[in-house]
Amino acid sequence: MSFPRVGVIGAGQLARMMAIPANDLGIEFKVFAASQADSAAQIANFIVGDYESAADVVTFAKGCDVVTFEHELVPQRVIKALEQSGVKVYPRSESFSFSQDKLIMRQKVAQLGLPNPKWERYEGGPTSLPYPLIAKSPTGGYDGRGVWVVKNSNELAELHKSVPILLLEEKLDFDYEISVMVARSPHNQAATWPATLTIQKDGICTQTVTPAPQLTEELARQVQQAALEIAQGIELVGVMAVEIFILGENFYINELALRPHNSGHWSIEGSNTSQFEQHLRAILDLPLGSTALRASYSVMGNVLGGEKSDMYRPYLHLMARTPSLKFHQYGKEVRAGRKIGHVTLIGENLLELQQEVQHAVDYMSGVIDE
Amino acid sequence: MSFPRVGVIGAGQLARMMAIPANDLGIEFKVFAASQADSAAQIANFIVGDYESAADVVTFAKGCDVVTFEHELVPQRVIKALEQSGVKVYPRSESFSFSQDKLIMRQKVAQLGLPNPKWERYEGGPTSLPYPLIAKSPTGGYDGRGVWVVKNSNELAELHKSVPILLLEEKLDFDYEISVMVARSPHNQAATWPATLTIQKDGICTQTVTPAPQLTEELARQVQQAALEIAQGIELVGVMAVEIFILGENFYINELALRPHNSGHWSIEGSNTSQFEQHLRAILDLPLGSTALRASYSVMGNVLGGEKSDMYRPYLHLMARTPSLKFHQYGKEVRAGRKIGHVTLIGENLLELQQEVQHAVDYMSGVIDE
Repeated sequence: MSFPRVGVIGAGQLARMMAIPANDLGIEFKVFAASQADSAAQIANFIVGDYESAADVVTFAKGCDVVTFEHELVPQRVIKALEQSGVKVYPRSESFSFSQDKLIMRQKVAQLGLPNPKWERYEGGPTSLPYPLIAKSPTGGYDGRGVWVVKNSNELAELHKSVPILLLEEKLDFDYEISVMVARSPHNQAATWPATLTIQKDGICTQTVTPAPQLTEELARQVQQAALEIAQGIELVGVMAVEIFILGENFYINELALRPHNSGHWSIEGSNTSQFEQHLRAILDLPLGSTALRASYSVMGNVLGGEKSDMYRPYLHLMARTPSLKFHQYGKEVRAGRKIGHVTLIGENLLELQQEVQHAVDYMSGVIDE
Repeated sequence: MSFPRVGVIGAGQLARMMAIPANDLGIEFKVFAASQADSAAQIANFIVGDYESAADVVTFAKGCDVVTFEHELVPQRVIKALEQSGVKVYPRSESFSFSQDKLIMRQKVAQLGLPNPKWERYEGGPTSLPYPLIAKSPTGGYDGRGVWVVKNSNELAELHKSVPILLLEEKLDFDYEISVMVARSPHNQAATWPATLTIQKDGICTQTVTPAPQLTEELARQVQQAALEIAQGIELVGVMAVEIFILGENFYINELALRPHNSGHWSIEGSNTSQFEQHLRAILDLPLGSTALRASYSVMGNVLGGEKSDMYRPYLHLMARTPSLKFHQYGKEVRAGRKIGHVTLIGENLLELQQEVQHAVDYMSGVIDE
């Protein structure tokens, strides 16, 4: 048999969920973990290593036909060392930089003629953007970390002391945020799913709705088109989340994540092809799968760590109350505010789906008792 | 965290497919394999042992909260030793005997007042059943093995020499065969899925269609009711396939399999709750999941080993031709006639679904080249 082996640098929940379609497709699957306790290492073949060590990563990759990533933290020098070692690496280092460095991303979006918020690279001195503004560390931030709201020039000067290069952006008073998942293969086949509404609280996504219900048909078409243009423009191979702000009939590109993404978890149940299977198909240069929906709406809720440490006992109540609810546990220890799992419900009645999902995550986190 | 550990005796494709919902639900999952090359051992935690050794099996079970089976070959003495060791075992040994011994099953079906074909226990001498008749080894047969069509008394006498106790059954000229999957938990919650048409060739199931399209509404109701009555009558815990012959407006119970079953594979994509997840919920005494359908029809095709040994290359053609087709590889070496995987397609146009599934399995087996 000639089934290929895919190696994933990183062993969190994204790699864990990628193991499922890999097994179904018969693809050998191995993860490069930081620890044997990592989410994906619990259920897949793994080796433990340091993703900042080019030697460790290249050794791991030798036994793989394709190597990919589940987070943005792998340094460019390591990715380039991988490429130079002759291993197939997707996304390519150059493409991946648009996910790792927000300044490079802003330049690229502008170059593609797609709408950015007003932005500037900041290395000190005055700024032309009005306060309050958004300041971002160009690299390393996620889930609200590395992002600051800056109210005045004193605050900016203070921040600049600890972060010498910043991306400044106008603070858009947007109506809501969406994400468009898109996939592209080396053959240049590409596919998107319908846009997903991402509901945030304190900078962390708590619930998603697909398709985003408020989006007009015209805007829905435009954002899918934009995602395809970016995928083409950065020569994406794999899946990517394009995070977007919506303000009236306008949209603005927020961020890119070149990997399976929290905003695409709904696709496991809600689409004919999940983002995890599509990522595998893309990096293996197989024909992409259908992104057709299996129901009118898919609602996903993140389970955040709360007061309860037992994530099993809630099943007794929740499975009885909502027999269609699907659970996804990441095998992570419960810590306050940490994403430890998610639930998904697909169907026709959006309000009911949202209520049931909210109830489930509140019950699992201990926010409510019944 | 108090997630339980489930142990499965057997490590074939059924255990492999059960690992997926176990991981999603956060349930620890371990298989008792005959070899490290076994289908489920490739992707799940395992130990190697001999399922005919009570000592081996009891040692394995000590670390588990519940133990279950993926085949009927585990001897009753081993299951009873497990039960006596204090481990929770589902299905119970007594229930499981209806899956292991077709004579005991026939008696039970008769006792429950449900329709059997005419049958008798045969230990030699003349039979009251007309020839040709069906003779079965009461234990150990599957996929057409252990089943014979007997044309006359000479053939019966000959067979009797090698199989001293036989189950004889009238040879029904049935219209078609169906299977009804049913689940039951210790709490006595029970659920069925709609009946599945099972299309056989040379005693091996090649394709299934769910719901069985020819079944009248009344008959569909009756067979689901019968499956629930049997589940209750034998105190099933877990899922069970009830295989049934349809002749006009009448049905006859054929066989019982107290485990996830080939005729239920469609439920992975086609139902809100797959048979594998439902089996886990049932043996853990969790509330059962919704058995609602995700599409009007689900068609499953078994991939049987043929001339091709490479099961990966066919993806290039099949994924491009049928972007919604879902593949399930079992990680088994290709051998002629062996079930090495299956494909599933769900949708609205039954004829098209059947054609695409047939094309896919013929292409993978090498029966056709394009």
